[in-house]
Amino acid sequence: MSTGQASLGPGREPDLSPPASIARLLETAGITVGGPDPWDIQVHDPRMYARALNEGTLGLGESYMDGDWDCPALDQLFTRLMRADVDRRVAGFAKIRLLVDALRHRVMNLQAPHRAFQVGERHYDVGNDVFERMLDSRLIYSCAYWEHAATLEMAQEHKLEMICRKLRLERGQSLLDVGCGWGGLARYAAERHGVTVHGITVSREQLALARERSEGLGLPVSFQLVDYRQLQGRYDRIVSVGMFEHVGPKNYPVYFDHLSELLDPDGVFLLHTIGSHVTARSTDAWIDRYVFPNGKLPSAVEMTEALEGRFLLEDWHNFGTDYDRTLMAWWERFDRAWPELRGRYPPRFYRLWKYYLLSCAGFFRSRQGQLWQLVLTRRERGPTYRSYRPAPVVSTGRGMSAGLTG
Amino acid sequence: MSTGQASLGPGREPDLSPPASIARLLETAGITVGGPDPWDIQVHDPRMYARALNEGTLGLGESYMDGDWDCPALDQLFTRLMRADVDRRVAGFAKIRLLVDALRHRVMNLQAPHRAFQVGERHYDVGNDVFERMLDSRLIYSCAYWEHAATLEMAQEHKLEMICRKLRLERGQSLLDVGCGWGGLARYAAERHGVTVHGITVSREQLALARERSEGLGLPVSFQLVDYRQLQGRYDRIVSVGMFEHVGPKNYPVYFDHLSELLDPDGVFLLHTIGSHVTARSTDAWIDRYVFPNGKLPSAVEMTEALEGRFLLEDWHNFGTDYDRTLMAWWERFDRAWPELRGRYPPRFYRLWKYYLLSCAGFFRSRQGQLWQLVLTRRERGPTYRSYRPAPVVSTGRGMSAGLTG
Repeated sequence: MSTGQASLGPGREPDLSPPASIARLLETAGITVGGPDPWDIQVHDPRMYARALNEGTLGLGESYMDGDWDCPALDQLFTRLMRADVDRRVAGFAKIRLLVDALRHRVMNLQAPHRAFQVGERHYDVGNDVFERMLDSRLIYSCAYWEHAATLEMAQEHKLEMICRKLRLERGQSLLDVGCGWGGLARYAAERHGVTVHGITVSREQLALARERSEGLGLPVSFQLVDYRQLQGRYDRIVSVGMFEHVGPKNYPVYFDHLSELLDPDGVFLLHTIGSHVTARSTDAWIDRYVFPNGKLPSAVEMTEALEGRFLLEDWHNFGTDYDRTLMAWWERFDRAWPELRGRYPPRFYRLWKYYLLSCAGFFRSRQGQLWQLVLTRRERGPTYRSYRPAPVVSTGRGMSAGLTG
Repeated sequence: MSTGQASLGPGREPDLSPPASIARLLETAGITVGGPDPWDIQVHDPRMYARALNEGTLGLGESYMDGDWDCPALDQLFTRLMRADVDRRVAGFAKIRLLVDALRHRVMNLQAPHRAFQVGERHYDVGNDVFERMLDSRLIYSCAYWEHAATLEMAQEHKLEMICRKLRLERGQSLLDVGCGWGGLARYAAERHGVTVHGITVSREQLALARERSEGLGLPVSFQLVDYRQLQGRYDRIVSVGMFEHVGPKNYPVYFDHLSELLDPDGVFLLHTIGSHVTARSTDAWIDRYVFPNGKLPSAVEMTEALEGRFLLEDWHNFGTDYDRTLMAWWERFDRAWPELRGRYPPRFYRLWKYYLLSCAGFFRSRQGQLWQLVLTRRERGPTYRSYRPAPVVSTGRGMSAGLTG
């Protein structure tokens, strides 16, 4: 920051001040270039304006990584930009939201084998060490549930327990986990709820680590490298966490049709996905080409259109602001671990990763981003499905206990 | 039934057997004319076939009221017809679902002052006596919540309590009840949760009874005869139960826009409505003209389309099968009270009312009908909204206690 402050001295000021159009735009979101607030932008190199104007969010993000500008609280900056819908109002900034989506997808697209662990720039290989330091002990790389949790570890466990209860798991049932990641949910459900879990992934790296982490535990879990569309069989329950974002609207019908065939008529299917507060009718060409091929966040309209006639909607739970808190927890843990990680990554990676985590936090804090858990059933299901939420915290003799674990 | 059975003797059989097309159609739903099962149809007058074929569900319903045919369990008959989607497969039966919608709307449209208490045929005036015998003590004329309830009285109270908890009511807050019926919800929220309630209705009859029932209770409730579009002000919370069905898709944007203006930016809005499992793109001309002017059940697609950019969807709870149970409870109570009511209504009214309640039960049991509670917030809301479900029943020292009241 000090460099930025220093460079704003009277002698340099003309070079660093923003074009009037950008200043006005930022003003609508309460942001000042060179201002004193934590969400204000400190410009070190004025080429950042041209990069942002000419290349949109690509230029904005790259110029941040290059150190052209700084911001004491990127999360607050992006919250303000996205709360004011600045991204939708001006061409030069038109792609902030898309970049955020794109970065998130780029990073989180663990289902896509060729893009796994490739972030932002292809030169960096993000290794397991980053995820092991950033995530909880189970390596759960999706939104946690914070209603009754004080730590990331607890919030992720509460999320897993909530999923199992929403699924109405009963001992001995079969559970299919579509996009199983490193197998954390599969192991939890098998261990705590006595179900047999089959996890599928299209990533060899995930498959290997999922198997390695499950070895010797004596749990009825299995993992398979297969596209869900190739899978046959019948399962009592299906769960899919953080995978739908990569399906793409044109494939939603196939996705739901095939999972419906895999689900027992009396079964329950829980879908956990990030959503968008509005429908983005088109995908930016640059984003589509360079950052996020074939990826798209569903809107509620796209979701219901694809579900009509395929599944009954039993329950729809939005806890998007918990992703803000999850991302901030990941950021804190990553930042704290950086001294040990820095030897294996270039400095530019630190800025990229920070930009990714904190801009995504702003995406959810501004409420542009949603986190949805939907519970879906086949229309012919016999028993009435009863939806579930963690009970309020109740006071007990031994102090406070959360409904989730009580 | 005995008449029906007797008239199926060998001598009459040729006259009473259905046309081959109808028999085939019924067969797909497992229904046999003259068959032994409770869902089978007993035909007393074969003109019912022509009436059904020529006039669709109008003819089917009218011929039932006229006693042309009978069925020991109308609810099971309609469940089978609608589960097999017979209504969508053949022209002659194409309007069963619409008729069910229509009857329900016709009867339940308490918001429409000129149609209140007019059912099926304009000659009958359904009086308060029917509703007082059929409904619970609070006169709640909407779907109850049966997860932890054994009686209608309890199930309606649980529904009211669930609404209040989903609204996250806090003492001293203001609550607007759009379509307040007879004021049961307003009184409950004021009494149990310490909020000030303003109920609005477009029915003079409802207004009068709502005020009468609230008199002398010392509760901070008020009622007003006004269209919601004319109302000004700001409320901490808004609730609307069983009113959205009468808004109509073309008015959804106005409905949500205006309620958003009436809601505090930090507020919570709960919408309780019947829904349809698929989008009905057109409304049948006859239905629209004679039975159900301007009414339509929303589909999830229509709902999300209207909500986009207007409200954030925080929670969507489907408990449609509880409407089946509610309708069956209403039917049992009506049937039991009939000996005392019959002096004031013609015999044809009994068959009309039975047909209405039991066909609607089948509508929900077949899962064509949905019952939705949505929780909506303005995007600028500060505090995180936490959704609510009644906790599972827990065992206590004094026996079982339901989460809702515990």
